[in-house]
Amino acid sequence: MAESSDVKVLGTWASPVVLRARIALHLKSVNYEYVEENFFQGKSELLLKSNPVYKKVPVLLHGNNSIPESLIILQYIDEVWSSAAPPILPTDPYERAVSRFWAAYVDDKWLPALRDLFVAEAEEAKTAAFARVEEGLALLEEEYGKMSKGKRFFGGNEIGYLDIVIGCFLVWIKVIEKFNEVKVIDEAKTPGLFQWADGFCSHVAVKDVLPDVEALAQFSLKVRAVFLKAKAIDSTDDTQ
Amino acid sequence: MAESSDVKVLGTWASPVVLRARIALHLKSVNYEYVEENFFQGKSELLLKSNPVYKKVPVLLHGNNSIPESLIILQYIDEVWSSAAPPILPTDPYERAVSRFWAAYVDDKWLPALRDLFVAEAEEAKTAAFARVEEGLALLEEEYGKMSKGKRFFGGNEIGYLDIVIGCFLVWIKVIEKFNEVKVIDEAKTPGLFQWADGFCSHVAVKDVLPDVEALAQFSLKVRAVFLKAKAIDSTDDTQ
Repeated sequence: MAESSDVKVLGTWASPVVLRARIALHLKSVNYEYVEENFFQGKSELLLKSNPVYKKVPVLLHGNNSIPESLIILQYIDEVWSSAAPPILPTDPYERAVSRFWAAYVDDKWLPALRDLFVAEAEEAKTAAFARVEEGLALLEEEYGKMSKGKRFFGGNEIGYLDIVIGCFLVWIKVIEKFNEVKVIDEAKTPGLFQWADGFCSHVAVKDVLPDVEALAQFSLKVRAVFLKAKAIDSTDDTQ
Repeated sequence: MAESSDVKVLGTWASPVVLRARIALHLKSVNYEYVEENFFQGKSELLLKSNPVYKKVPVLLHGNNSIPESLIILQYIDEVWSSAAPPILPTDPYERAVSRFWAAYVDDKWLPALRDLFVAEAEEAKTAAFARVEEGLALLEEEYGKMSKGKRFFGGNEIGYLDIVIGCFLVWIKVIEKFNEVKVIDEAKTPGLFQWADGFCSHVAVKDVLPDVEALAQFSLKVRAVFLKAKAIDSTDDTQ
């Protein structure tokens, strides 16, 4: 096994999925070098070489191994540093399956809704996206009740897989709340998640890697413009 | 842990992803009851109850646990019946990550291309889809060379995770080859996969659960009609 000093994360500071890799390494007390990519200036040779299929961050570099895709990185970190407490995934196979199920749900279903809410311009589109985000949160609230068993986190007393998978979006959610003047994680509707979010953001493995809300809000305006431009190009294609 | 007799698979005979669950159970020599769903007659109460989010097959029922999503099922089977040789995922964390990466690639990128090839009507659309399918196969051929290390399967001497993930599509590929008069897995272009496909389909854990090519070809005409109808409805929505 490579030494901890052989560990690098290729990321961008504003990317929630990059946070996943970093939080997991912090949880496992693994030293690593963080390498910032700047997509506005083009992708680095190192990124193109280490993730040739998707050319996306995060990539975890560990010795000669390069591991892309945040959910795969989380499992890799859990398996390589298995003796460094706490475990990220639960140990029970069924609980592991449940965690994987909801992680996939978050990335495949809930995240697209959150992204739609972030870029929505028309009031109607905003309302529709918000309804989908809330529907997902209601399911996650129910799951939080089951998995946490009265403790603070999805993982019980300690942050686990699903905490990291969902928690990485909390600062982006604050930005969306700010611009849309809505409460996405609402104390009345999802009291469990509301309390969980506070616990997550103030966790010792999390608080130092979270981006600043104001800085992210400023940066998000640039990201939103890129999204809207891409959407405009898509629409042009549709009508050709 | 529940007894093997408490194991059920909810599936449809023509579904490639249902095959994944069944092949894994055969590999692990787990007895199970196979319950056929008939979507043309509507979804069963058992399916709706055991996979309320997606309402899709496969679902693995194990005692009181219900596990949807084929990739999650494969990992669950591997973890629950861990002492039943052979392991499905490799034991090395990096090899596990590589297997997970390509499995996600197959489902997220390659399968949509294969589906587009299956339903394409216009010659141009067929050519475009076929190019994407071939691009994916070239990547998988390269990965087969690396992972099999001169042995028969992605998993080495024995069928593993990626064998099951890709191999479940082989009969559908035969159907697509038949209707399109093309070779999808071509001996000249992907010699490794060509040989691998034979070995996979004749494996003792696989051959008895594979659907008959002719029966699937007949059934596929019905499936194709449903796809095309859905596509027509989508197009109508776009122009509204």
